[in-house]
Amino acid sequence: MDYDADLPAHVERVLARFLRTAGERIRELEPTFGEGLDALSGFVLGGGKRLRPSFAWWGWRGAGGDPGDAEGVLHAVASLELIQACALIHDDLIDSSDSRRGSPTVHVAFAKEHADHGWLGLPSTFGQAAAVLIGDLALAWADDMFADAPLPPATLASARPAWRAIRTEVLAGQYLDVHTQVTGDSSIDAALRIDRLKTAAYTVQRPLHLGAALAGASEELIGTLLEFGGDLGVAFQLRDDLLGVFGDPSVTGKPAGDDLREGKRTLLVALGLEHAAKRGNAAAAGLIEAAIGAPSLTESEVDDVRAALTEVGAVDAVERRIEELTAASLAALERAHLAEPATAELTALAAKATKRTY
Amino acid sequence: MDYDADLPAHVERVLARFLRTAGERIRELEPTFGEGLDALSGFVLGGGKRLRPSFAWWGWRGAGGDPGDAEGVLHAVASLELIQACALIHDDLIDSSDSRRGSPTVHVAFAKEHADHGWLGLPSTFGQAAAVLIGDLALAWADDMFADAPLPPATLASARPAWRAIRTEVLAGQYLDVHTQVTGDSSIDAALRIDRLKTAAYTVQRPLHLGAALAGASEELIGTLLEFGGDLGVAFQLRDDLLGVFGDPSVTGKPAGDDLREGKRTLLVALGLEHAAKRGNAAAAGLIEAAIGAPSLTESEVDDVRAALTEVGAVDAVERRIEELTAASLAALERAHLAEPATAELTALAAKATKRTY
Repeated sequence: MDYDADLPAHVERVLARFLRTAGERIRELEPTFGEGLDALSGFVLGGGKRLRPSFAWWGWRGAGGDPGDAEGVLHAVASLELIQACALIHDDLIDSSDSRRGSPTVHVAFAKEHADHGWLGLPSTFGQAAAVLIGDLALAWADDMFADAPLPPATLASARPAWRAIRTEVLAGQYLDVHTQVTGDSSIDAALRIDRLKTAAYTVQRPLHLGAALAGASEELIGTLLEFGGDLGVAFQLRDDLLGVFGDPSVTGKPAGDDLREGKRTLLVALGLEHAAKRGNAAAAGLIEAAIGAPSLTESEVDDVRAALTEVGAVDAVERRIEELTAASLAALERAHLAEPATAELTALAAKATKRTY
Repeated sequence: MDYDADLPAHVERVLARFLRTAGERIRELEPTFGEGLDALSGFVLGGGKRLRPSFAWWGWRGAGGDPGDAEGVLHAVASLELIQACALIHDDLIDSSDSRRGSPTVHVAFAKEHADHGWLGLPSTFGQAAAVLIGDLALAWADDMFADAPLPPATLASARPAWRAIRTEVLAGQYLDVHTQVTGDSSIDAALRIDRLKTAAYTVQRPLHLGAALAGASEELIGTLLEFGGDLGVAFQLRDDLLGVFGDPSVTGKPAGDDLREGKRTLLVALGLEHAAKRGNAAAAGLIEAAIGAPSLTESEVDDVRAALTEVGAVDAVERRIEELTAASLAALERAHLAEPATAELTALAAKATKRTY
């Protein structure tokens, strides 16, 4: 099979098969749980760029993985999408987000089901319960899918350190993110620590590590890939920060300015406050500070924040960082001397995720 | 080492070691997450009867496991306590329970930290976020601990089906439990389905299955142990149902009648309603029905419900079922012909968890 040419479709194929098989027995045993299983399948198969499996796949290909393992590796790396399903379902609950990819989030959909039926208790309580349990199921199934990948036990065991790290690191990043929001820590340092854990490690570094380990890569090669992934991952997140404030809702799938309303302490915001302070621009600082975590922020207030961030130079500063980080990451990629077409494919992924789209 | 004589202490020893090791790197990388790690360690090491590891251990011993595997098996079965930590932390959040084992639940403790610091946003939102993420960490670490048990890969692989089943089944049981509460389904059938999934499978059957599989047990032996565990597990839950309404708060660690306030649709309640209907005792039926899911139920109202459940014969009916199920389970245990002292130990566990304590 030509996996390289249509990787996302192959990832979806093995995910669909896993979800069907894993669900069959429990669906028979307890039909009521079927709506939970359907929600998870709909979520996992309903979209997403399959970024994490793609990085893992190219890490494996680039490190010269045995072509005979391809289907097994595909199965192992696709399981990253189930970790991601848990992370998103639980994150949406924690952030009280109403929609994702243009659809209601899981807790909102189950709260609506409750309300539509006029069930007992509060719809939001039922929505919360369903989102917690369906996210847990995704996390448990991620482990099942990874552990059951049809690969030699020693091959799978070599990827365990990356598997262990990815789940602990993303949870540490999410906790830090929430903690920073409630303490109001607007420091550049905190924003960068969140970016390193929640995006760089989780989306790029550990998937690459996982794939390379499945190919039996040396510690040295893994180290170089972690360098590449660290810089690229932060660049990703900075692009995402910009999209969260400046992005087109029809492209991002969420209302413009939602990152501000949710109180996310991004590097963009941290730089905005720092630049405003340095320039003695109290008006801009006040606008930005007031917007963070203000749930009722209007469209025109978001416009004012955009203008302030641009005026004090924070947007240019973030763009420069994206450029520098992307360049540094590509230099590390060169040094890795991966088997082709991995370098070309990873370069394309890097370009796609860091380029301006607004 | 003499594991048999002091199994809970050995379980705690390997859990403490795992939690320390797993936490070290991430604690260094992101000190803020330390409070989450501390909360999880405190929760896991702070109490609990270690029932699931005990059933798994005796399943392994009874099926004639290789004594050379003992330390590895201990490590594998102790990981069940981390699944349980996730289940309890998330359950307490879902049920809005304030205390467990006499201490504040995780979401309550983190909400209090938020309030004490006067942080931004709502304390309850922060408490929810922390409980979701710390429960997730417990679930991810359960899998890490199980997968890293120092056992031959083939031995560990033989226990994977039980490991897969236990997590999916408990989540299905929890979902069904929540669903039954909101739909107000007071049927005997629904109560028994919850008991089978949430207690019997999760607490007794799958742990026994896991242990026996680690010993290389035959399908036939595993089948007999599942019979034993199914009946015993339901008997457990019925005893727990009685304790939830009639138990001494100083022993159960939660306010008397909390199961009623939370709206749990137990077999005790289902039988109470059925018996009241059969006897045409509308007053008793009304009392019971009104108490389920009434958060402000007073002590004296709980007394009235107790009297009603006793009067219509539901308490006697549940006691009889406990006796019958326990007897049937012990008959299955006989048929399993386990290696001693497993039969004696499992019989003692059965007696301890099903006997009257009020």
